Amino acid sequence: MTEQFDAVDVIRTKRDRGVLSAEQIAWTIDAYTRGVIAEEQMSALNMAILLNGMNRSEIAQWTAAMIASGERMDFSALRPVPGGPASASGSKPTADKHSTGGVGDKITLPLAPLVAVFGVAVPQLSGRGLGHTGGTLDKLEAIPGWRAALSNDEMMDQLQDVGAVICAAGSGLAPADKRLYALRDVTGTVEAIPLIASSIMSKKIAEGTGALVLDVKVGSGAFMKDVAQARELAETMVALGTDAGVKTVALLTDMNTPLGLTAGNAIEVEESVEVLAGGGPEDVVELTVRLAEEMLEAAGVRGADPAAALKDGRAMDAWNRMIEAQGGDPRATLPVAKESEVIYAPADGVLVGMDALSVGVAAWRLGAGRARKEDQVQAGAGVRLHAKPGALVRAGEPLMTLLTDTPEKFDRAKEALADAVTIAPEGSRPAQQLIIDRIA
Amino acid sequence: MTEQFDAVDVIRTKRDRGVLSAEQIAWTIDAYTRGVIAEEQMSALNMAILLNGMNRSEIAQWTAAMIASGERMDFSALRPVPGGPASASGSKPTADKHSTGGVGDKITLPLAPLVAVFGVAVPQLSGRGLGHTGGTLDKLEAIPGWRAALSNDEMMDQLQDVGAVICAAGSGLAPADKRLYALRDVTGTVEAIPLIASSIMSKKIAEGTGALVLDVKVGSGAFMKDVAQARELAETMVALGTDAGVKTVALLTDMNTPLGLTAGNAIEVEESVEVLAGGGPEDVVELTVRLAEEMLEAAGVRGADPAAALKDGRAMDAWNRMIEAQGGDPRATLPVAKESEVIYAPADGVLVGMDALSVGVAAWRLGAGRARKEDQVQAGAGVRLHAKPGALVRAGEPLMTLLTDTPEKFDRAKEALADAVTIAPEGSRPAQQLIIDRIA
Repeated sequence: MTEQFDAVDVIRTKRDRGVLSAEQIAWTIDAYTRGVIAEEQMSALNMAILLNGMNRSEIAQWTAAMIASGERMDFSALRPVPGGPASASGSKPTADKHSTGGVGDKITLPLAPLVAVFGVAVPQLSGRGLGHTGGTLDKLEAIPGWRAALSNDEMMDQLQDVGAVICAAGSGLAPADKRLYALRDVTGTVEAIPLIASSIMSKKIAEGTGALVLDVKVGSGAFMKDVAQARELAETMVALGTDAGVKTVALLTDMNTPLGLTAGNAIEVEESVEVLAGGGPEDVVELTVRLAEEMLEAAGVRGADPAAALKDGRAMDAWNRMIEAQGGDPRATLPVAKESEVIYAPADGVLVGMDALSVGVAAWRLGAGRARKEDQVQAGAGVRLHAKPGALVRAGEPLMTLLTDTPEKFDRAKEALADAVTIAPEGSRPAQQLIIDRIA
Repeated sequence: MTEQFDAVDVIRTKRDRGVLSAEQIAWTIDAYTRGVIAEEQMSALNMAILLNGMNRSEIAQWTAAMIASGERMDFSALRPVPGGPASASGSKPTADKHSTGGVGDKITLPLAPLVAVFGVAVPQLSGRGLGHTGGTLDKLEAIPGWRAALSNDEMMDQLQDVGAVICAAGSGLAPADKRLYALRDVTGTVEAIPLIASSIMSKKIAEGTGALVLDVKVGSGAFMKDVAQARELAETMVALGTDAGVKTVALLTDMNTPLGLTAGNAIEVEESVEVLAGGGPEDVVELTVRLAEEMLEAAGVRGADPAAALKDGRAMDAWNRMIEAQGGDPRATLPVAKESEVIYAPADGVLVGMDALSVGVAAWRLGAGRARKEDQVQAGAGVRLHAKPGALVRAGEPLMTLLTDTPEKFDRAKEALADAVTIAPEGSRPAQQLIIDRIA
């Protein structure tokens, strides 16, 4: 078979700062999927894209080509709840959220059932953790009996009946992205905004959600370390979603400090349940409510009050039904780590910094995360914080508790935490702004 | 085994415009040789090097690491010819030449025996052609019986007795370079000056020559299309050679026009023999003599007159002995192409342009070169020119003859030649300067 293009020509075009045509891009993804473009050719192209960029049109073509590499889901058969909102085509509206990943980011857990309360279906296809940011599925798997893998039919039934599903993405959506991501991971080409944006958006567009809210994290514990980069990524993704007919909004949110007071698996479920019970840490509640408002607005729901649904038990009811529908027991006792060790405040003063990356790495090293895909995580492992920035602390007071089943991990976790905490003289105030910007 | 570095860290350093340490570079080449760094990682690193560059010290370390990946040759056991020149250590001096590749570049053929006339050993390890630039070994293999492969002992004996050897480089010199070059070829990363310079110089330094003259080609038929690039490459290589104790000089020479009147295999041997017989095209003679002078001077020989040695038959004697020593019959009839087709001048005027790349591609398509390493070349195929820039031509007069055993190739060759020839009104003069600069 004669190929339409030549891999080396495509690489050279991007290497020399040229613009790839729609046909070149479609061929590139297809040829990579067929094995005609070799891994080493794709990695050279990725590095050229990382260093020389792609324009909006190239990114849109790249995304479309990745979507075309697999199947697309369709939620148009979902019926609206009686008296509830409906999409323009008369079906139940759908809304999804994607976070670029952070430390202590359990927001999906309370958010999905909270949005479902208002008659919007939330098809939350999630992943497992790799490295210092946790994975939503790893967290939920701390619940006895809960299973991440659903068939498409099971997912549709649950979206109809319960309204919220958090489950593993099947391998059929944008399969080219899966291979490409694995390649980028080992070739230093993860940090390319065009590739990050197209990777995320190809899966979300193929998933078929009607509305999408992006939580783009910025700071030490996030992928994007500065606001300018995060804004560029957010703008790129919003444009991609909008062009594909998905109502898309992005928030830039702070990830210099962990979200809430827990980073781990079972302990993050526990904190999520506190939020669903009307309590929980202020920042987790604030972000959950704000993202719910954005999702509901994007899905066309007017006048909803998600904060009230956390207080009055409706969100908790939806959570319980969601967990039960996937075999989990929402009232079961969660696993607890066998060993713990407390870290104490070294001085008096105001806690002005609790570094997200350090806490994330510590939780990961304690067993909450995995270094390789095939590793197991410990359900009970992680870091529990006893103070957040802004708190007045006294020397010798507990600042955090490290949790693990394997106490030999404490030392490496403590190494990661060596510079995690910053205490300033009384009267100091930490810089704090959870929601930095909104991009629509 | 614990590795000293991590491939992704090395890639990221160069990706982010950092400087690689000597230890990182040594580890990188060694780990690539051991298979610890995968092809896709090396290709991403190569692209980062191509786009972000390397400084002089990094290039020197990279070259040293490639040399360290294999064996080094040693010519110190060669005895001087009676009454002839000797190196500082008392052995026969050695001098080599490397051309970055051009169209019609048969200079090595007359040059090696010419320099040997003056008591200098010329260990010319050569390659085969790939793409539009021919390969020295392909040309010599047009001579019945001649063989490219010599053992190290055969090579030493011939350097002692005849003084000149043109043979295939063994696989033991800089083996990392061989794999790296194959990778660069398929990943669009050939055109990186640090990688080109280290590739060439690692082999020449490992070969152990005492003096080296580099012929860096510039123009349409060369790798380097502009003088600034070529100068940068030449300066980089001269610095690498000098630092390694090899007396190194570079000439920048024009490759917008083919060298001589032939581009092919047997027809280039024929033209080389004309030069050795005291005739031949002016440009081939000029460059052969100039390179011989540079090699002899770099090897410490004073007062040699290579032009005279072409006229008086001494160079031809050395050629005959060199060819015979490798099994060839210097008096045998050379293969002739089965088919030919003549291209005529389209107008009256002065021939001001005869594009080297077009002629090279045409010769390649006629069968003189190969598209893949495993392809065979046709000994008789190629392009014979009947006029060079500066000549007055008349419409309908033969400009060139295309030669091949496979006449179905004529059409594609003629396509390559569509814009090869430029004819200007009488009185015009082509820009012509064969030797552009000298870098020492």
